[in-house]
Amino acid sequence: MATGTDTPRTTVRRLPEKQVADVEVLHAILDAAYAAQVGFQTDGQPFVLPMACARDGDQLLLHGSTASRLMRALADGAAVCVNVMHLDGLVYARSAFESSMNYRSATVLGVAQRVPDDEKLAALERLTEHLFPGRWAALRAPKKKELAATLILRLPMDEWSVKVSEGYGEDDPDDLEETVWAGVVPFRMVAGEPEDAPDLAASTPVPDHVLRNTPGSAG
Amino acid sequence: MATGTDTPRTTVRRLPEKQVADVEVLHAILDAAYAAQVGFQTDGQPFVLPMACARDGDQLLLHGSTASRLMRALADGAAVCVNVMHLDGLVYARSAFESSMNYRSATVLGVAQRVPDDEKLAALERLTEHLFPGRWAALRAPKKKELAATLILRLPMDEWSVKVSEGYGEDDPDDLEETVWAGVVPFRMVAGEPEDAPDLAASTPVPDHVLRNTPGSAG
Repeated sequence: MATGTDTPRTTVRRLPEKQVADVEVLHAILDAAYAAQVGFQTDGQPFVLPMACARDGDQLLLHGSTASRLMRALADGAAVCVNVMHLDGLVYARSAFESSMNYRSATVLGVAQRVPDDEKLAALERLTEHLFPGRWAALRAPKKKELAATLILRLPMDEWSVKVSEGYGEDDPDDLEETVWAGVVPFRMVAGEPEDAPDLAASTPVPDHVLRNTPGSAG
Repeated sequence: MATGTDTPRTTVRRLPEKQVADVEVLHAILDAAYAAQVGFQTDGQPFVLPMACARDGDQLLLHGSTASRLMRALADGAAVCVNVMHLDGLVYARSAFESSMNYRSATVLGVAQRVPDDEKLAALERLTEHLFPGRWAALRAPKKKELAATLILRLPMDEWSVKVSEGYGEDDPDDLEETVWAGVVPFRMVAGEPEDAPDLAASTPVPDHVLRNTPGSAG
């Protein structure tokens, strides 16, 4: 499989030391994401749409609605760029110039295609199980009209790049004499307590599959 | 000021009940963001670049490096789409079809322009103070060569749209008989304890401006 670092379009020229060529890292970044930012152009205007996402082997699934004009424009073989970025913290350096953020960022270039009707149910199961692990078995089967209103794209991950920024600022040696504090403030996403829907029947317990689904644990 | 809902390109056709036309909500979503996803096209290929961002009145500032080929392509009057999305939770509905996410999403369309040299210092201060409130006064002044290596874009926010999804799933009435749990698992970003840089001089205290900077509090 191509690592994406093979193509001129995905070679990281800026801060190349942050580039990662390990496909396992690509997969880990995507697997920790619930949504991806999908960029494409139509009628001369670029758009970036946040879409629910799930990795399915070496393809990326993206979930939308057939009722969306932009989604339909996107579905018909559009060239796309998909980015997922996790913000991991703020890097306090001793100068504004070296101050930065820690992050994990994955970018996939390719051509989006609709998942055909006969594969849509399986793709929807994959998406549902990624966002809501253990949920599929607890829900009724999708109806035909629901599947018809669902648009799922898939994108082969042949051309991609990953950048990971971690650790502390790299201050200019001259700046180490500055008396200012330097370090990192880490960020993370956390899940709060599940909140019952107002129309939930009394004493319906929160199932284990909900309690186990914390950010980053997505399946 | 135009709300962005005036233009055909930014009218939300899909789930229009989620569209918000209040500029204060746009500002709040952008002000809670450290990074934005910047979409543009060059040589027939769309790209989405995560960039540090800060709102400056009714303009959006975006921070990059003059060393980046894509950034330079972006800087010279490119049509862009900038999206910021905060993921607020997972919505467990009684069907896969109605299962979704809660989020706040802001999209700005426009043309990116370089901040000219004589305004770069002020723009860098705004960006630094947004990401690291209280930091600017604690740091030495930027050097001329640092400013030269810094590329800051600005984007007027004339054309924009906001979508906010909150609350619980809207289940089909037929599905209310399902015995499955329904509700929301809220997500939020939290800051961990500040971590001293390994080369920090002994007993340099963590300043108040660092301790006060928690996600969403950005200035």
